[in-house]
Amino acid sequence: MRHLFVVLAFCLLVLGNVASAKDHKGITTSAIGEGRFTLIERATPAKILMAEDELKGVQIAAQNLQVDFERVCGKKAQLLNETPQGKCIIVGSLQSTYIQKIVKAGKLDAAALNGKVEKYLMTTIDNPLPGVEEALVIAGSDMRGTIYGIYELSEQIGVSPWYDWMDVPVMHQENLSIAKGCYTAGEPGVRYRGIFLNDEAPCLTTWVKNTFGTNYGGHKFYARCFELILRLRGNFMWPAMWSWSFYADDPLNSQTASEMGVIMGTSHHEPMARNHQEWARHRREYGEWDYVTNQKVLDQFFREGILRSKDNEDLVTIGMRGDGDAAMGAKEGHDDEFVDNDQATIKLLEKIVKNQREIIAKETGRPAKERQQVWALYKEVQRYYDKGLKVPDDAIILFSDDNWGDIRRLPSAEERRNHNGGFGMYYHVDYVGAPRNSKWLNITPIQHMWDQLSLTYQYGVDKLWVLNVGDLKPMEYPISLFMEMAWYPTRYNATNLLEQPREWCAQQFGESQAKEAARILNLYSQYAGRVTAEMLDAKIYNVETGEWKQVADEFMRLETEALRQYMTLPTEYRDAYSQAILFPIQALGNVYQMYYAHAMNQKLYKEGNPEANIWADRVEEAFARDKVLCNVYNKEMSGGKWNGMMIQKHIGYTMWDDRFPADKCPTVSRFENVEEMTGKYIFTPSDGYVAMDAEHYYSKENSAEGQWTLIPFMGRTRSGISVQPYTSDVKGSSVAYRLVIPTGHDEVDVHIITASTLAFQRVEGHRYTVGFEGQEAVEVNFNGELNEDPENVYRIMYPTVASRIVDMTVHIKVGAAGTKNLIIKPLDPGVILEKIIIDLGGYKPSFLFGNESPCKRN
Amino acid sequence: MRHLFVVLAFCLLVLGNVASAKDHKGITTSAIGEGRFTLIERATPAKILMAEDELKGVQIAAQNLQVDFERVCGKKAQLLNETPQGKCIIVGSLQSTYIQKIVKAGKLDAAALNGKVEKYLMTTIDNPLPGVEEALVIAGSDMRGTIYGIYELSEQIGVSPWYDWMDVPVMHQENLSIAKGCYTAGEPGVRYRGIFLNDEAPCLTTWVKNTFGTNYGGHKFYARCFELILRLRGNFMWPAMWSWSFYADDPLNSQTASEMGVIMGTSHHEPMARNHQEWARHRREYGEWDYVTNQKVLDQFFREGILRSKDNEDLVTIGMRGDGDAAMGAKEGHDDEFVDNDQATIKLLEKIVKNQREIIAKETGRPAKERQQVWALYKEVQRYYDKGLKVPDDAIILFSDDNWGDIRRLPSAEERRNHNGGFGMYYHVDYVGAPRNSKWLNITPIQHMWDQLSLTYQYGVDKLWVLNVGDLKPMEYPISLFMEMAWYPTRYNATNLLEQPREWCAQQFGESQAKEAARILNLYSQYAGRVTAEMLDAKIYNVETGEWKQVADEFMRLETEALRQYMTLPTEYRDAYSQAILFPIQALGNVYQMYYAHAMNQKLYKEGNPEANIWADRVEEAFARDKVLCNVYNKEMSGGKWNGMMIQKHIGYTMWDDRFPADKCPTVSRFENVEEMTGKYIFTPSDGYVAMDAEHYYSKENSAEGQWTLIPFMGRTRSGISVQPYTSDVKGSSVAYRLVIPTGHDEVDVHIITASTLAFQRVEGHRYTVGFEGQEAVEVNFNGELNEDPENVYRIMYPTVASRIVDMTVHIKVGAAGTKNLIIKPLDPGVILEKIIIDLGGYKPSFLFGNESPCKRN
Repeated sequence: MRHLFVVLAFCLLVLGNVASAKDHKGITTSAIGEGRFTLIERATPAKILMAEDELKGVQIAAQNLQVDFERVCGKKAQLLNETPQGKCIIVGSLQSTYIQKIVKAGKLDAAALNGKVEKYLMTTIDNPLPGVEEALVIAGSDMRGTIYGIYELSEQIGVSPWYDWMDVPVMHQENLSIAKGCYTAGEPGVRYRGIFLNDEAPCLTTWVKNTFGTNYGGHKFYARCFELILRLRGNFMWPAMWSWSFYADDPLNSQTASEMGVIMGTSHHEPMARNHQEWARHRREYGEWDYVTNQKVLDQFFREGILRSKDNEDLVTIGMRGDGDAAMGAKEGHDDEFVDNDQATIKLLEKIVKNQREIIAKETGRPAKERQQVWALYKEVQRYYDKGLKVPDDAIILFSDDNWGDIRRLPSAEERRNHNGGFGMYYHVDYVGAPRNSKWLNITPIQHMWDQLSLTYQYGVDKLWVLNVGDLKPMEYPISLFMEMAWYPTRYNATNLLEQPREWCAQQFGESQAKEAARILNLYSQYAGRVTAEMLDAKIYNVETGEWKQVADEFMRLETEALRQYMTLPTEYRDAYSQAILFPIQALGNVYQMYYAHAMNQKLYKEGNPEANIWADRVEEAFARDKVLCNVYNKEMSGGKWNGMMIQKHIGYTMWDDRFPADKCPTVSRFENVEEMTGKYIFTPSDGYVAMDAEHYYSKENSAEGQWTLIPFMGRTRSGISVQPYTSDVKGSSVAYRLVIPTGHDEVDVHIITASTLAFQRVEGHRYTVGFEGQEAVEVNFNGELNEDPENVYRIMYPTVASRIVDMTVHIKVGAAGTKNLIIKPLDPGVILEKIIIDLGGYKPSFLFGNESPCKRN
Repeated sequence: MRHLFVVLAFCLLVLGNVASAKDHKGITTSAIGEGRFTLIERATPAKILMAEDELKGVQIAAQNLQVDFERVCGKKAQLLNETPQGKCIIVGSLQSTYIQKIVKAGKLDAAALNGKVEKYLMTTIDNPLPGVEEALVIAGSDMRGTIYGIYELSEQIGVSPWYDWMDVPVMHQENLSIAKGCYTAGEPGVRYRGIFLNDEAPCLTTWVKNTFGTNYGGHKFYARCFELILRLRGNFMWPAMWSWSFYADDPLNSQTASEMGVIMGTSHHEPMARNHQEWARHRREYGEWDYVTNQKVLDQFFREGILRSKDNEDLVTIGMRGDGDAAMGAKEGHDDEFVDNDQATIKLLEKIVKNQREIIAKETGRPAKERQQVWALYKEVQRYYDKGLKVPDDAIILFSDDNWGDIRRLPSAEERRNHNGGFGMYYHVDYVGAPRNSKWLNITPIQHMWDQLSLTYQYGVDKLWVLNVGDLKPMEYPISLFMEMAWYPTRYNATNLLEQPREWCAQQFGESQAKEAARILNLYSQYAGRVTAEMLDAKIYNVETGEWKQVADEFMRLETEALRQYMTLPTEYRDAYSQAILFPIQALGNVYQMYYAHAMNQKLYKEGNPEANIWADRVEEAFARDKVLCNVYNKEMSGGKWNGMMIQKHIGYTMWDDRFPADKCPTVSRFENVEEMTGKYIFTPSDGYVAMDAEHYYSKENSAEGQWTLIPFMGRTRSGISVQPYTSDVKGSSVAYRLVIPTGHDEVDVHIITASTLAFQRVEGHRYTVGFEGQEAVEVNFNGELNEDPENVYRIMYPTVASRIVDMTVHIKVGAAGTKNLIIKPLDPGVILEKIIIDLGGYKPSFLFGNESPCKRN
């Protein structure tokens, strides 16, 4: 069963009464059974009936449905134009032959579809047509309504909208049926819903080159985009425009969009259905992109756009910005070098738009208002609007976010009342601009997008929503969230919001994995939203307070959880899971580890601590790992299908743009000859105590025969030191720890943590002395009770040795405050010092005896 | 090439001069080449020549070598008794026919082997025998020397000693040769080196039942143990003795040991080569295990043991403890209920041993000193020794550790001079006893074992080392470390110690994975050494200081690293890697997550925080995951080969032993109706500041139309709250935060962290007020500059919105110290509060604005 929802009661099907149509999320598919309509039986799919005169877009969707059935059961569904005997699936728009017949026979109430926008009904009907015993009828109010109904069925049989763009596997089914009933997804909340492929070099362009062999996006590429959009119940697109020209590169592009049913637009700064590149490639011939000096050429340029588009549904962008997405009369990225010329510009813009509308009217042969237009109030254009710029009443006013997902401006109640063209929103999950590009990974928190799109809709912005998706990948999830909100903006509230990623994950990774995948995806989105990889550096988090460690650890935890889930996934799901969840976590997590290591490297280097070198290695290892991870994405994942899609630079930004030759490893600092760097540590208190790892002494004295020997990793934390060999006389050996004691601590508790060496040689116990230099030393017998004497064995020995350490606490005199030496001298062999804590009143009992206190080497 | 060491120069082979034999670690195998001896050519292995009259143990090893070649190249090596033409491998003990012929021909210097213990030479010889052009000769000083030489070759061709017990894969080779030269591993540092299978229920016994169908360890099972021991260059074993009887269960057990070349003993409390079960099963017939009251029966029992063993090499345990590993006259686990009767017991023990030696002399027909004996000074018996108990001069005195790896006692220089029988060490990596059993996982730090075994050897304890290995699995690594140190106790020092796990990992997982695997294995061993799963609980680490989070995070980090490596491993290595590295980390790490969650659950429940419930879920999830992990070990890993090996209880100890029916999930505390548990939080300062997540308010007021709405996961850390819908009038809404302000803070800086909502409605900016109750409130415009005005766009807007939050800091009056309410009132829509920080002088700028301060609900 693909959906959670179980059909609890038999669905009473009242023919003709579709007012009661249920939400499409209630559809269930499962094995064949009573009261259900059979879709697949013994691996043979139901036949599909469609009228010969059906709209092209519906035909294409129906052909895709044929193949979707093949993906599910191994056998393509037959697509017929003549009524078959028995049962079948009937697809058609309301106007089409068979649907009209069914309506006329009183078997389907046309009122439920008539005049509706992009609505479908999916319903089972007995004897809908002569000879047809029973049919699952998918009828649409219009072309796209029908298409959405068809793709709804595709989803229901187990084909994710992301089967192609995210390699979501299709589970094989031998037998499948659908719960009888009448279902609909209703009408869209937002009229135009789509995506903008943008900032498409180097990833998308390289991938297209590798995949299609073209230096531009051709119709085979766009057809895959269109199919995705339609399967996500979108209807709109702004094509990529950095170096590609949708209209000029491949004449079949526009035709394919029209046929498939996707409405094209041109981006906010490309007026009159023309691509920026169409001008840019002919700049020498056309001259300046300046309406004041070059109106004639521009008008002709605009005219050609309208002529080309007049017979399709394309949404015409009006208005004008400067050349190549710059403000008019300004240079992109220099908006702060501002000379107020707004009133003149406003006048000019109003003139431009007036002329544009005249061109539209003339070339379409109808009033301008009958051809849907949009004016994008992006960046500075919004300011003109606020200063009085008049927008034609029928044009959609397209507001925008700040490129980071915050809505800049929303219409007031008055504006909503007065502007008949309605409002739109241009939103970003990818951005090339200040303070730094965000082109690499999905960095949009789920809650943020939900919050701001909810806000958008609450303020009546429902005519056009368009999402800047960068290269499209790896924005799979935010694209889905955006399109779902565009269809049904109020479905999710603050309480049920996380149902959305859960359902999305169920569709992509299976119901049993959905909850955990969604939990991980949500946390990833939150972490990624904190700061982008491009903006991250060693200084973002506080290394001194432990914040850096904490966030680096958080990412490791998340990666563990994702890896755990990855390992439990059936193999066929792994590529999809990698794309949506595992790779982003590993990739961004690794960048976190790298900068954390860099922060530690810098800190320890400054402190003279030779461990700086270890952290330097870690920086370089993480930098190398970044390449490995991206390479796997490009070359190995999904059999190398996404070759080029993950080549975006993301390490080494120094300004907003990525104009540096290649990712660059942070510069690390290293000590030479670390082997010689022993001793000389000086500690200062923190949180009311000083904790010192035993290896971080200030100075040491060896005995005649024995050597103080470092045992790395000995003990609970860092290491241990002892005089070796253990057969040698320890006489004369000592070690000194140097630390700052503030005033007010004449006497202190000192914890000496040693390994739980037993009294293997001196039955009464092995000893050391401890004392501050210049004060009397105290003798400590640390293992005299660690034996099997009846009074010791269970009370002292076993608990101690099982803990592997002995914590001896002595109360000793300090002398005057200041920088002091604490001296420890072993008197017997086998004293392995691990840690020393000076309690200045703040020490809280800890199993690891606190993190090491701040120290420097002098 | 299997070994790191590259043969840099041609090995000059001086026949007969084996004084220059190189360390066996210098052997390299690689593809066939000049100056190398070919072992496998086009998937055909070299022939093996062995004398017909060879010792049985050598024959068995040679047969295993045949199969090892098959594992490598797919074709069994031929084993011949007659000299072949051409080239071959010749194996034999010094006394065997062919080796004697080679010695007599002056081609091999017998002096290098004569009188040596368990030594082999592996050397290439031209024309060693008539008709044989060239041979790789493996000659041993004795049976085991020869066996070790044979298994050395097995290792060199790529068969790990752990191929069976840890499923280490054998890499296929079509062509393989060995560097010419003369190699040896020398003689062992310790005379008897072995393992003790102990505490063998439920895991080992269940696995044996599932694998061999027997309720005891039969000879097929033991043969696999013996092979492992010999491949690890061990020679000794104490068999399992809880419910099994090595001698009585299967008469072929003892014979198999003798034939294969393993010396058997009986454990420290099973004297005279008899199993405890041999008495226990006949207790009704035999009577009390008490030498005072039942000497006659005991003497006869002892006599039967010696009679049975007189013709084999078995090492005879002498002395006596109480029944079933208890102290004499005491009850196991009640050593502290002590009545001093030591002098009487000593006299009795001396009498027992005198009689035992008389039995030995009588039944073997030779003086007692000619039959090697061992007396274990385990637990209380060591005390008798210290009090004067005399041990026969020829018997090995077996000291022991404290069951936790610390050496209890070592012989003084005088004892070493005076006691000719020498000394042994009984060491543990598994224990049933106080303070808690340690039966589940390997919990021995590498450094600890190395340190204490080095100490042991430094003090002249070199006659017998025996390791209690529990069920054998999952102690693979510590068994290897122990056996390697027993052979060559001084090979590793504090500096090169970590070469040992690195080489071990190279052998098990391949050279390219060795460094990282060893790094992970070492860290695991350190973490596991801190506290066992059996002793761990919510209280071990400090939850208040963040220590618990830190150690839980550390384990997650380690698991990530292990999972990363696991995913890069060729599939055939994964089972081995799971057994030695991934499973222990995941299993113990999961127990850490469970108790950490339990600690958090208890803490938050006490504080009245409804998030206690989330942590309760986590406890239960981890408990369930523990079962999943163990089940995979038992049923899925290695195709279910280890079914039963991982069924040891480890959660729910309340006393030292595991006498509880099943693992028991820690008891969690949960609030009912958490949905209603909003507000009432009261904060106290920590580290000089108070940080409060916005959802943790004390009280709130909604506006007429709007509701304060929680948006979980909104923002950088926990969540955000805002008055929704955003179209509603916020007038009348407010939220109060309650916190303790200490004296000396009349005025404070307050940071209010909100989402970077823009002024979508009120162009001049959206506002809220903030102030302590009873004091004047300050009005804050938090987004008035977040616009694209030239002076704001790059300087303020972009950096702020890309950070997704606005940190507004106000300096406000507190009034008198005490528990105060801070009131925040939105004046415009879209104020999403995320965090509030009151800086009392200690706040350090942090990207996440500090961890939330201590709070309780009232």
